[in-house]
Parts: sequence; C-alpha cells; structure tokens
Amino acid sequence: MTRLGPMSRTDLARHLDLSKASVSTFVRDLIGRGVLRELELVFGQGRPSVMLGLCSDAASFVGISLHADPATVVLADPHGRVLARRVLPREADPERCFEALAAAVAAVRQEAGVEAGETAGIGVAQPGFVSRDRRICLASAALGWVDVDVAGRLSALTGLPVFIENDANALILGEQLFGPSGDCPDFSLVFVGDGIGSAHIVNGRLHRGHHGGAGELSHSPIAFDSQNALPCRCGNRGCLETVSSLQAIRGAARRAGLPADIATLATLAADGNPEALAILHRAGSALGIALAQLVQMFDPSQVVLMLDPALKESVFGIVLRQEMDNHVLRRSGVKTALILRGSEHETFATGAASLAAQHYLFGSNCT
Amino acid sequence: MTRLGPMSRTDLARHLDLSKASVSTFVRDLIGRGVLRELELVFGQGRPSVMLGLCSDAASFVGISLHADPATVVLADPHGRVLARRVLPREADPERCFEALAAAVAAVRQEAGVEAGETAGIGVAQPGFVSRDRRICLASAALGWVDVDVAGRLSALTGLPVFIENDANALILGEQLFGPSGDCPDFSLVFVGDGIGSAHIVNGRLHRGHHGGAGELSHSPIAFDSQNALPCRCGNRGCLETVSSLQAIRGAARRAGLPADIATLATLAADGNPEALAILHRAGSALGIALAQLVQMFDPSQVVLMLDPALKESVFGIVLRQEMDNHVLRRSGVKTALILRGSEHETFATGAASLAAQHYLFGSNCT
Repeated sequence: MTRLGPMSRTDLARHLDLSKASVSTFVRDLIGRGVLRELELVFGQGRPSVMLGLCSDAASFVGISLHADPATVVLADPHGRVLARRVLPREADPERCFEALAAAVAAVRQEAGVEAGETAGIGVAQPGFVSRDRRICLASAALGWVDVDVAGRLSALTGLPVFIENDANALILGEQLFGPSGDCPDFSLVFVGDGIGSAHIVNGRLHRGHHGGAGELSHSPIAFDSQNALPCRCGNRGCLETVSSLQAIRGAARRAGLPADIATLATLAADGNPEALAILHRAGSALGIALAQLVQMFDPSQVVLMLDPALKESVFGIVLRQEMDNHVLRRSGVKTALILRGSEHETFATGAASLAAQHYLFGSNCT
Repeated sequence: MTRLGPMSRTDLARHLDLSKASVSTFVRDLIGRGVLRELELVFGQGRPSVMLGLCSDAASFVGISLHADPATVVLADPHGRVLARRVLPREADPERCFEALAAAVAAVRQEAGVEAGETAGIGVAQPGFVSRDRRICLASAALGWVDVDVAGRLSALTGLPVFIENDANALILGEQLFGPSGDCPDFSLVFVGDGIGSAHIVNGRLHRGHHGGAGELSHSPIAFDSQNALPCRCGNRGCLETVSSLQAIRGAARRAGLPADIATLATLAADGNPEALAILHRAGSALGIALAQLVQMFDPSQVVLMLDPALKESVFGIVLRQEMDNHVLRRSGVKTALILRGSEHETFATGAASLAAQHYLFGSNCT
C-alpha cells in the first residue's frame, strides 16, 4: 500500500502521528476542499471504519529535477502520476535557468488542461545543499551555484509556492508519498547516478542530519586501502563515487579501451568480456560494501536502490547483493530487504512534485 | 548543561516534547514525590521563570554492567554520581550470575545507607540483542546466553523493577541523561573495547533501528580490500573489530613479540618503537575511516568516542582524528566535533543506572 492509498481516519492519525481529534478536523477540512472523499465502509474489529480516498483531480503539482542535464519538468496528480512533461537543457546561469523552467511550467500546465485541477505548487530537486527553510540553494558543485534564491525567483516568475530539496531527499520523500515503501517507518534509499546519493526515513520522518548532510554516501571512503585508489572531485581519494558511480564506470571503460556506455558495457559483460566484467564487478562490489556499512549503522527495514536498468540486470546488480549479504552481520530470522529498482528518467521530477504535494496535503504536519 | 541541570518548566516541555499543560501536571507530581524542587526565580524575556532542580536524595538507582568480565554493580544518585560499587566475576551460568548480582545489589544498597533514598530500580547493560520490551536477552555471543529472562529473574531476586539494554545503547542513554552531551538532539557515541559499539540519538531519541541492530560498528567491513584482512568471530573477514578493537591490538602486539598490554604498547609507541607505532597507527586509522563513514551517513552534531585513556593519548588518538578529518566531505563552516573521552571502569554501569533513572523520572515519556 502506498502512503496515499485508501485509509481510515485511524490509519491517518497513525501515519501523521496526530490525535484522533486533530485528524477529524483535518479530514473535514480536506473533504470540504475536495481533496479527500469517503469511499466505503470497512468492517473489521470494533467499529466499522470509513475509508478515505484521495481525489485524483483535487490538485496537480509541478516537479522540477535539476539532478542532471537535461532538466525535467513534470505535472503530476496527487497519486504521483505524470500528466505532462518537458525536458530542457539545464542552464548554468541561474536567471536564465529559472526563465526556461518557468516557460516549461506554463507548458505542462497548459498541456494537462483544466481536468488536472488547480496547480498547487512547485517542488524542485537539486544536487547540493539547501537552506533550512528549503528556499535557498546554499552550494551545489554540480550546478556551480552558491546562495541562489531558487524558491524566491521561481515563485516570482510563476506565481506558485516553491519548495526545494536536495535530490536524494526529494527522491525518498517521493518514494514515501507515492511509492510502495511509503508504509515503512524506517527505510533507506540509495541511487547510483554520476554521484551516489542516499537518504533515510527514520520514525516516519526524513533524517536530514545535524548540518543537513546525512546520506552523503558518494564520498564515503571505500577504496582507501587499495593501491589504485583514485582521486575524487571532493579532494580525497578512494571515495565510493570514484569506483561505483556511472561516471566512474564510464571512465574505467574508457581507460580499458571499451565503449563508455553503460548498456553496451553491460552487454559486453553478459557476453563474457573479461575487462567489462572486471569493471562492473569492482563497481558492484564496492557499492555492496557501502550498503553493508549503511545497514550495520542504520538497520533500516529495507533499502531501495535506484539504478540504471542495464546495471540492475548486469553482474553489477548480482555482485552488490552478494557483497552486501556477505558483510552484514547475520542474525537468525532478521534480514534487511534490498530492493533494486530501475530508475526512470522522471523519478527525480516526481520526487520533486511530492514536495509540493506533501505541503498541499499535510501542511505543517509533513516531514 | 546536562539534561538534568536546573531548568524551567518551559525547558522541560521542550526536552520532553510535551505541552506546557502536561509538563505542569508532571512537575506538580514530581515536586509532590520529592523528586524536584523549585530553586530560584530567573528574570529574562517575558515572565520570570522558576528553575527546577533535581533532589539528589530523591531516589537511587542500581546500574549493572555485564559489558565485560568482571561485572560491575553501582548505586547512583539522580545526577549519576556513584554512591557505592562492587566488582564481581561475571558468571557464565545465568542463574548463578543473577544470584551473585542480587547479593551485590544488596551490598551497595546497604553501604549507601538510608541517605541515598529509596532504590527505585535496576538497569542492566549487556552485550548483544535484547527484546523489544527490554526484559529478555535474546542472544549474546559474549555472554553465551540465548533467550534469558534477565529482567524477570533479577526482579524476582531483588524485588525491584529491572530494565535491560544493549551496552552501547545504555552508554548513550547514560550520556544523554547524566553527561555533557545530553543537550544535543543528535549525537553519536562510539566505544572501543573488546568489540567496538556505537549508538545514535536522533531527534532526542535513541535510534534502535528496525530490527534493533543499529550501530553495529564492530562488524562494519573495513579491511576487506587488504591482503591481510583477518577473519572475524562473526564469520566474515576484515571487520573493523579485527583491526581496531582492544583484542585486535593485543593480538597484533602478541604476534609482533611485544607485550600485549595497551598501556605498555602506548608507551613503547611514544618511545618510537616502530612495530608498536605501526600497530596503533593501523588500528587508529581504520577507526578514523569508520568514523568518517558514520559522519557521512548520519551527520550527527558530535561524536563522543570512549576509549582506554592510554589509547586516547597515543598515536591511535592522533591518527584516528586525522583520518576522520581527511575523509569527511568538507563544507565551509560545518564540522562534526569529535570528543575523545577516557572510559572509566564504571561508565557502562552508570549508563545502566540511567535506564532506571529515566523510567523513574520520565516514566512513559522517556526514550
């Protein structure tokens, strides 16, 4: 069940950690605004309970991903279904970037039409660090931005409220709101892209860390012990990112004289090419070790790993699961599930849309 | 300020995450029971506030540490000060162990006398896994116990309520209640003993993990890449414990023909003995890497590291700080404090006493 599937007022109180009285007021308000509707009566133990469902046309939400170039803009319904999309170059200059994004926002809203309901807000997923109030991009090496007022500028151009979030955090909040793991009070999410990000839901809430830096798996030291530890863009050597990221895999392929394309590399490995096999084996193995460390430290109920579909099916996916299993302390009957998920182009954008949906649906009750 | 220093009702409401109304009732009850007293009026912004102080003779708490052999039993006051202590062999047979502990409990209570106030309960810190209700030792390799009803048996023998907890968790709860880090809503604690344990306070609460296994730093894979990765008692190779634990350091010293005593080894290293230096360097370096991984993943406000005073002052302490600093992603103005603390023989026992104090002081409001 996703977090937004049909649920009773009692379920909702538990999910939001609210009293029954608070939930009743909250639900009355949402029914009045056309966001929730009463679905059916369910008979179980005790009093029968009325199941509540979310109205798909209650509102729509813009999600902007600046995670990679090109950028992605989607319009999503309250269940996270994409109604319209645009892909556009990610401009380096903030002002030009915001103007192009505002035009794309107008385009997706127009395409989706009036059936999509009012657009309630915009969420932005971006690499790097964001301010505590989720409005300012404090620093992003990938974007080259420092202290950029993303929410203020985008809001001025579109007339909509804007919520920004680090890309890994947006992804896990999207998974929590729209995805099948939404019911888990404790889970971790890891994605493999040009960097490697992670985020953690602890007791139902996003764990940001004291300085907002929790989950920086990319720069976890992993190959420090090895003679061939590579220098990382962060200034250290042997970070996980230098072995297991898409960029690192492509670099290793290039150095071995192989095509620097993940799908081709995976095919070569499947056909038994020893160099392709070695590259994917090493990359998967290092990630498996890092996942074992994560599990030892956090003990989540499950780890959702989002990665390129070609990698998922390759030796990379097999080896990382073996290494993780090998290095997690075994206890009888207890195992952390590892769920490999092929990441779609739009996953970060729907994660971003979930930020606006969270605020619309739960207001100050959201994580 | 420790968590139990003088504070106003408003401070207390914030600490316990309670409403002002709930705190007023709670405080009235505690004053009535002679636990709290009103100290002085403090004038600041708004209404002057009455500071509340804990009465040192309100009650006393037994702390039992089964962390190492010998076991330690203390009687502590509400500020964590030890009033009486006993050290006794840690018996392998549960029933004989409990009988010896019950005799030691009677002895410390008698020694402290009536000035200590009533004994409110017993806390037990033990290696291994405990049940969700904190009564049963589910499994402890160090004790050789499986499904032992620690709380039930000790309670029957002493007539006191008993609360048990994993040793690392007891240590961080003791630090939260009695120690100088009690004010931090997010911090981590790591200790170096024959194993290496860690625990985490997140949003003011102990993070146990989904299966109760968070913080298992001992078996974090760290030397997996090295040709000389040693086998670990858990069945894997290259766990942190095989390099950085006291047992591992002693083993390495023995293999090098050096005295297997930490203090002597530290002195040899300080005098420039190359083999002693190499052993402590390698052990400190691996722990520094593990701490960097912990900081990257959790982003705590600070890490309290408890270790043998001799190690703290040796090259081990210097190198681990360097390695941690080298491998944590640098960001301007943001740094996680690493606090090295020499661990006393009684630290685990006062941590255990804090379990009983938490229950006595905060009841169901405790973590």
